[in-house]
Amino acid sequence: MAAVVDAFEQEVQRLARSLSRHAAEHKPSLFEARDLLGRMIEWSLEDESLRVALFRFVDVLPSLGSSAEIGRHLEEYFSRVDHALGGLVFLAQALRAGTLVAPIVRRNVVKLARRFIAEESGNHLETVLAQLRKEPAAFTLDVVGEATVSDSEALAMQKRYLDLLRRLASVSQSWPIIRQIDQSPYGPLPRVNLSVKLSSLCARFDPLDPATESVVRERLRELFREAARLGAAVTVDMEQNAFRDLTLAIFRGVLEEPEFGQAPVAAIALQAYLKDAEKDVRELIRWARRRKRRVGVRLVKGAYWDSEIAWAKQKNWPIPAFLDKAETDANYERLSRLLLEGHDIIDAAFGSHNLRSLAYAIVAAKQLGVPVNGYEIQMLYGMAEPVRRAIIQNGQRARVYLPVGELLPGISYLIRRLMENTSNTSFLRQTYADKKDIDSLIKPPAAVVRRSVAAHEPQPAGGRRAFQNEPPIDFSRRENRERFRATLDKVRGQLKSRRRAGEWLESVNPANAREIIGRVRLTSVSDADEAIDGAARFFPEWRDTAAEKRAEILFSAAGIMREKRWELAAWELFEAGKGWREADADVAEAIDYLEYYGREMLRLAKPRNTQWLPSETNLYLYEPRGVAVIIAPWNFPLAILAGMTAAALVTGNCALMKPAEQSPVMAEHLLAILREAGLPDDACQLLQGGGELGAHLVRSPKIHLIAFTGSREVGLEILKQAYSHRPGQTHVKKVVCEMGGKNAVIVDNDADLDEAVVHIIDSAFGYQGQKCSAASRLILLGDVHDRLLSRLIDATKSLKIGPPEDPRYAIGPVIDAEAKSRIAEYIQIGKKEGKCVLEMDAPAEGFFVGPVIFSDVDPQSRIAQEEVFGPVLSVIRARDFDHALAIANDSSYALTGGFFSRSPAHIEQGRKEFRVGNLYINRGITGAVVERQPFGGLKLSGIGSKAGGPDYLLQFLEPRTISENTLRHGFMPPEEQDGNRARGS
Amino acid sequence: MAAVVDAFEQEVQRLARSLSRHAAEHKPSLFEARDLLGRMIEWSLEDESLRVALFRFVDVLPSLGSSAEIGRHLEEYFSRVDHALGGLVFLAQALRAGTLVAPIVRRNVVKLARRFIAEESGNHLETVLAQLRKEPAAFTLDVVGEATVSDSEALAMQKRYLDLLRRLASVSQSWPIIRQIDQSPYGPLPRVNLSVKLSSLCARFDPLDPATESVVRERLRELFREAARLGAAVTVDMEQNAFRDLTLAIFRGVLEEPEFGQAPVAAIALQAYLKDAEKDVRELIRWARRRKRRVGVRLVKGAYWDSEIAWAKQKNWPIPAFLDKAETDANYERLSRLLLEGHDIIDAAFGSHNLRSLAYAIVAAKQLGVPVNGYEIQMLYGMAEPVRRAIIQNGQRARVYLPVGELLPGISYLIRRLMENTSNTSFLRQTYADKKDIDSLIKPPAAVVRRSVAAHEPQPAGGRRAFQNEPPIDFSRRENRERFRATLDKVRGQLKSRRRAGEWLESVNPANAREIIGRVRLTSVSDADEAIDGAARFFPEWRDTAAEKRAEILFSAAGIMREKRWELAAWELFEAGKGWREADADVAEAIDYLEYYGREMLRLAKPRNTQWLPSETNLYLYEPRGVAVIIAPWNFPLAILAGMTAAALVTGNCALMKPAEQSPVMAEHLLAILREAGLPDDACQLLQGGGELGAHLVRSPKIHLIAFTGSREVGLEILKQAYSHRPGQTHVKKVVCEMGGKNAVIVDNDADLDEAVVHIIDSAFGYQGQKCSAASRLILLGDVHDRLLSRLIDATKSLKIGPPEDPRYAIGPVIDAEAKSRIAEYIQIGKKEGKCVLEMDAPAEGFFVGPVIFSDVDPQSRIAQEEVFGPVLSVIRARDFDHALAIANDSSYALTGGFFSRSPAHIEQGRKEFRVGNLYINRGITGAVVERQPFGGLKLSGIGSKAGGPDYLLQFLEPRTISENTLRHGFMPPEEQDGNRARGS
Repeated sequence: MAAVVDAFEQEVQRLARSLSRHAAEHKPSLFEARDLLGRMIEWSLEDESLRVALFRFVDVLPSLGSSAEIGRHLEEYFSRVDHALGGLVFLAQALRAGTLVAPIVRRNVVKLARRFIAEESGNHLETVLAQLRKEPAAFTLDVVGEATVSDSEALAMQKRYLDLLRRLASVSQSWPIIRQIDQSPYGPLPRVNLSVKLSSLCARFDPLDPATESVVRERLRELFREAARLGAAVTVDMEQNAFRDLTLAIFRGVLEEPEFGQAPVAAIALQAYLKDAEKDVRELIRWARRRKRRVGVRLVKGAYWDSEIAWAKQKNWPIPAFLDKAETDANYERLSRLLLEGHDIIDAAFGSHNLRSLAYAIVAAKQLGVPVNGYEIQMLYGMAEPVRRAIIQNGQRARVYLPVGELLPGISYLIRRLMENTSNTSFLRQTYADKKDIDSLIKPPAAVVRRSVAAHEPQPAGGRRAFQNEPPIDFSRRENRERFRATLDKVRGQLKSRRRAGEWLESVNPANAREIIGRVRLTSVSDADEAIDGAARFFPEWRDTAAEKRAEILFSAAGIMREKRWELAAWELFEAGKGWREADADVAEAIDYLEYYGREMLRLAKPRNTQWLPSETNLYLYEPRGVAVIIAPWNFPLAILAGMTAAALVTGNCALMKPAEQSPVMAEHLLAILREAGLPDDACQLLQGGGELGAHLVRSPKIHLIAFTGSREVGLEILKQAYSHRPGQTHVKKVVCEMGGKNAVIVDNDADLDEAVVHIIDSAFGYQGQKCSAASRLILLGDVHDRLLSRLIDATKSLKIGPPEDPRYAIGPVIDAEAKSRIAEYIQIGKKEGKCVLEMDAPAEGFFVGPVIFSDVDPQSRIAQEEVFGPVLSVIRARDFDHALAIANDSSYALTGGFFSRSPAHIEQGRKEFRVGNLYINRGITGAVVERQPFGGLKLSGIGSKAGGPDYLLQFLEPRTISENTLRHGFMPPEEQDGNRARGS
Repeated sequence: MAAVVDAFEQEVQRLARSLSRHAAEHKPSLFEARDLLGRMIEWSLEDESLRVALFRFVDVLPSLGSSAEIGRHLEEYFSRVDHALGGLVFLAQALRAGTLVAPIVRRNVVKLARRFIAEESGNHLETVLAQLRKEPAAFTLDVVGEATVSDSEALAMQKRYLDLLRRLASVSQSWPIIRQIDQSPYGPLPRVNLSVKLSSLCARFDPLDPATESVVRERLRELFREAARLGAAVTVDMEQNAFRDLTLAIFRGVLEEPEFGQAPVAAIALQAYLKDAEKDVRELIRWARRRKRRVGVRLVKGAYWDSEIAWAKQKNWPIPAFLDKAETDANYERLSRLLLEGHDIIDAAFGSHNLRSLAYAIVAAKQLGVPVNGYEIQMLYGMAEPVRRAIIQNGQRARVYLPVGELLPGISYLIRRLMENTSNTSFLRQTYADKKDIDSLIKPPAAVVRRSVAAHEPQPAGGRRAFQNEPPIDFSRRENRERFRATLDKVRGQLKSRRRAGEWLESVNPANAREIIGRVRLTSVSDADEAIDGAARFFPEWRDTAAEKRAEILFSAAGIMREKRWELAAWELFEAGKGWREADADVAEAIDYLEYYGREMLRLAKPRNTQWLPSETNLYLYEPRGVAVIIAPWNFPLAILAGMTAAALVTGNCALMKPAEQSPVMAEHLLAILREAGLPDDACQLLQGGGELGAHLVRSPKIHLIAFTGSREVGLEILKQAYSHRPGQTHVKKVVCEMGGKNAVIVDNDADLDEAVVHIIDSAFGYQGQKCSAASRLILLGDVHDRLLSRLIDATKSLKIGPPEDPRYAIGPVIDAEAKSRIAEYIQIGKKEGKCVLEMDAPAEGFFVGPVIFSDVDPQSRIAQEEVFGPVLSVIRARDFDHALAIANDSSYALTGGFFSRSPAHIEQGRKEFRVGNLYINRGITGAVVERQPFGGLKLSGIGSKAGGPDYLLQFLEPRTISENTLRHGFMPPEEQDGNRARGS
């Protein structure tokens, strides 16, 4: 067996070496320093910071409207580059070029891009295709476009696909059949071949939304139908891992439809860097055999590696890709063989520039008896011409992946390709730029132990694992969607419907007020006083309970919550009107608070030695304050209540929870979990009621601490009441206070609008804008104003409104009738103050309010200054970035805020001058994560206490200093003593 | 030369070896395990924790009144000992002994003590002396007694010295002359020899108080006169280094008096472990030669090594002693030779048990031609009998240092001796317990590099030295006393005397209201508003100034303050009526605040990465709040004002200083220093005025932060006003608030009263009780009540009252007429509520109030509950320690507190249950030091913000979180990237 393997391996290396010799005659244009940017790419290979600056500059360039803007960005990006040579040479050239530099640069980038992306208009595309077929090389077209954020954009993309199919079908009539590229063992191959990204076919490709599958299937069906009619081929591209299951499902689903039994020629891309790729390959082969339908598989290594890692880390999910390049390469070879073994039903296409990988596939095909035209090699346009030439000379069918489209939307493609082919593990880079020895490049891939990512993992501390955020449920997985659906049904079965009068508080489903979530007994004033006394009596015992034990109770509660997370999210969905992801996120955040504050207390519980003195120990330590009242809002009914309560409890205070009237049931759940985790009854009591009850608690002279999250009006009144000393009060109360926000998002002229639109919608309309962090002011700079606003309106229009248990509805109800009418009032005010550019219909039943957008809003108007707490966005026009910052800061709130910009100088300026508690750059402004983004506002948004941050627990504690003289008649204790002493004898 | 040295060294070692052989025949009784405690000492040599427990137990034992108490302490000390063998065996014995254990233990300790201390009553002393003379060994008597804390105690000690002289003079008549011990080359030697500690001759041996020298000289003179009359000899013992200069001065001063030209035979002890010892020896020899008077010098190594290090570290002074035992030994030999070289005028006595040291002296004497009876060897009674025997056999004159007195006061002596002779560098221990090879013990002392103490020194961080407390001026040094005296004269010359009317505030000397310290212009409301506006305007610039630069200004100001510290202390003395040390300490504390907060800000200025994510940077950072009002009190007119202002400024807030009306001049000094250090004018402005001005500032909606230290009444009003939201206010104000105290000191039954009395006086009457930290309640347990109270009253009576510029007055004036009359009112109240056991006359001119002590005070009475802020102490009787803690905690204040106890269990209990901001155990309760004792109170004493602590600056800052998505089209920045990537190509 070893001998067989060895012979095979020898053959692979021989072929790779032979291909390499042929390829070596030319250099890929990518690595030719033909012009300014060519030279910069060359330099960037030597310097990572220059490479980043270059790619970021290329990324922003198409969005820059003027030469002045280009010049400014050039300077911002490259004056800070470390690489002395690259930076200096480039800047020198730029300076020499004077005012001409900007147009030169733009011309250069356009030239650069055109080496990789064909022009859609005119006849450039036809010229390029004719040249390719002369080599001869087949092609597949990739249509580059803006990220699709609305239905109109999705329909426009579909139209472009259809138009291209028709246009090329017509053109291709005149192309002669070329045996090497147009013929397979099973017959002639379509000369027209289109690659399609499914995410471009709908407003938001969301696996959770059942509409995604039906809408995309519908649109893909039309493409397939047209391709079948025209005799063209369609390949479905693979995007990020989160889209994979749904992409495969749609691909197979459409092909299972009777009309697509044999036509069109269809293929799908699979990514070898994914750990699950082998499973997908095997399933696809099984499916095709069962279905008796040939399908193509384009095997690639994968182009989203950075992003997959980034996204997984953000959510604390397992990383779906191999971390080791060699593992990916080895998997690629394994999958190549698998695909070739399935050549009875699979048309394999090997997409790679790596000669070793390609040689492996070719030799394996030979070994398995697959004819040379029974598979093909695919490569990117403009990246690896010499390799392509060698492959063609070797007799294989080569197909070029050719992007077509405009420069601006093509940048995303361009960056991805430049990045991967200039990364220091790229075969091309190693061959042509780093000039590595061919022998080292064609060795069989061997897994290398990967330390670097693991080294960044939090290390366990003191036996207990370091804090890690609770991962949200991955609703891109079907089993999770099904489980939550079942949980919703189960919980709904427990809802009540009859009403009961008297001292009961009833909680209703805001999407359907006839549905009663639960009823709880209202706490009377005398009950409240009794609760305070009970807490005060129990306090010394709780205070003196070891911090470790208190923390353990939090950890247990977190464990219980983890087990019950499905049910809890379901209850929250019904009680608070939250969507699936939002409800789940609130539960995960509650778990985070328990785990984080528990660990924080373990850290703070250790007394600190303030100074080393031989004769005196000086300890600095923290102790709890006493009885804490927790007044929590309904919008994060579990997380905020749990967070404030956990902070109070773990620090040793007794807590009296006063949840919002609108979410009493979630509070009951929390209390039950804390009890189950072993919390003594008197340590935490639940008092149900409204503002009157809260006010009574706040005024009590026996209360030591008030932790409040809610409206400004209530917060300021609490502060006033709490700091007015009352008879019988023997301490100063402490107030931890988070109030509202009127949060602004700025969009700079050079912003990435694809990203901005998506994040603005999330931030403004997520949970119907009922978050203190929600975006309610959108400040747009002149150049982007109209374009962004129109995309935003279109994208928002694609959102559907309805009860949140059905995940097709992105917009649910607001919390209650009062909220609905308050928001309606503000909409009326807004209509007077600004221009209503979007108002959507909403169901009349339930407390629904559709998203509303006002444009041309005066920064000083009420709609731009007052917190609406609903899905209402005020758009303000700004002259420039300074003006935008001034508008953003001109508010008495300062909770969250954000901006989208790709100008290093503006990012730096915004960082300093956009004065809010939580500032977000180039991302959404909601969804602060415990520990990662300590959360809390300035000005009248709060007192700067940051929940989920390292200083939060200090507010619940009082420091004490204990100094002990340890010298007794000149005799020091041993720990401070030292062996070598000078005393006489 | 080398040959000479070698021959000498050989001779030394030969002699040491020979002496050692003779000594080895017996074991010193110290190391004989004859009884329970003997065995424990033996065990303790093997286990440092047992040694500590043992010595601490021996320390407390004499004060224990009952068997039950002894049993309890036994258990508390030894159940926690690490040493399994020692602890277990001992406890087993104790348990077997049952209720008998306590008396057994006491009997054992008495027996142990009697091996080292002769009984004063009866004829035990005479028996011991007769035995010694039989050996033959001479003696010198050391009279052990309680620490002297009052004049009556000092006079009693003098009487004991005189009585002993007379008693022994009479007894000694019958003693035959013994040549070896009673004869010197210069004639017969006195057979009666008394050692005297000068500190025992006055109420408080304070080099700063000019009365110390005159009083002690007077009392020593009488001793010398009587000794001369009786033909006895007197040796002045040397105590701690701080007493050294004055001790030498008094010794020489008295001997310079004509009547003591030749008699009595007088000697002084000098300590070889002091770095300055050689200077002292040389000066003394020169002085004796000039004076043509023989004096004796007892050369010892020194018995306060631990304490000297401890005290020096506490004050951050250079350590006066060698840290290396070998250095001390080498110095001992050097000084031995020096003394012997001065044998024409010096009678050298070598006090040591180290055979190497003694052999060196003997051989050197021989080499220098000093007759064998021209010097002597001194040893401690009961410690080193075999060594003594060998020395006597060798023909030298041996003199035994024999303590005489009661067990309880002798403990201090006993501990010191046990400690030094059982320390692991003790010659005796090494010889008899550790059984070290004699050759290793008699090698010449070689300096060993000492790392251990240095290793504890704060290490420099980031170029700047780690924070160190500013050392106070050492007023035990004459040059410092003279310098401050001159500075006082200079400053007094600048005082004004005419009064001026109108908008001027005049600051007067509280010791003499006719003296005007200065006058400042009162700030009008409109000026104040202008100042606020100026601060608000300047704020953005100051906020954006680099934290490093702001910190540098503080460091510069600290430097300037250090240069001006003498003048500043002098001004403060006159303006605030503070004594020398108190005034100096306030300046040092101000410097500390500047240095500490500067460094704290450097620490806090670094943004923290909250979590590592590959695609997002999340920074947590702090920013200033805005305009801060600093409302400071007059009692620490520089330190508190400077501390709060420095905190506000270094964090980037603009500060408006509103000092107390009583200390406007110190504020002017501070402002000038800050300006000189480079602080921009608008960053800090000084507003002079009273409560009206403060109230106006507090109410201003433009103020962001109020830092207040002062009375409860004002503090609570500030809190109320500040947290009442006002029109135009766009933020929540922050209040940093330190209020008063009603601080208690508990004295447990087993407390060390010598220490307790001194610390209580300091804490209660230091600066006339005008500190928020001052002791104003003294809670005494039954067994110590009467004894402590009577010593306390006597000690307090020894304090003199008068203007603070004269350091003989420990008690100065209170701040103003209002304070004087308020205190007088409270004294009247106290006289109704309790029993006035001390009321001292005070000068009628100036605002003087003498110390007042009330006993039998009800814990609930006004005098026990309300802050008097003057030299008034209420003594409350407690049943037991629990009761004492309950009384101490039964206050709405909780600032400082302390207790004296030697019960490990009570110390543990007090630590937990004595709930004050700053708790002090077995020490005074005032004088918190920056960083070492972060300072601030709980309950109605404050909001727990600890000045000079690690959380203080956080109050002046607001946290912000900045999250930046760094992923652009899947491209991660390089810092998070990793070379080994999996993406394909």
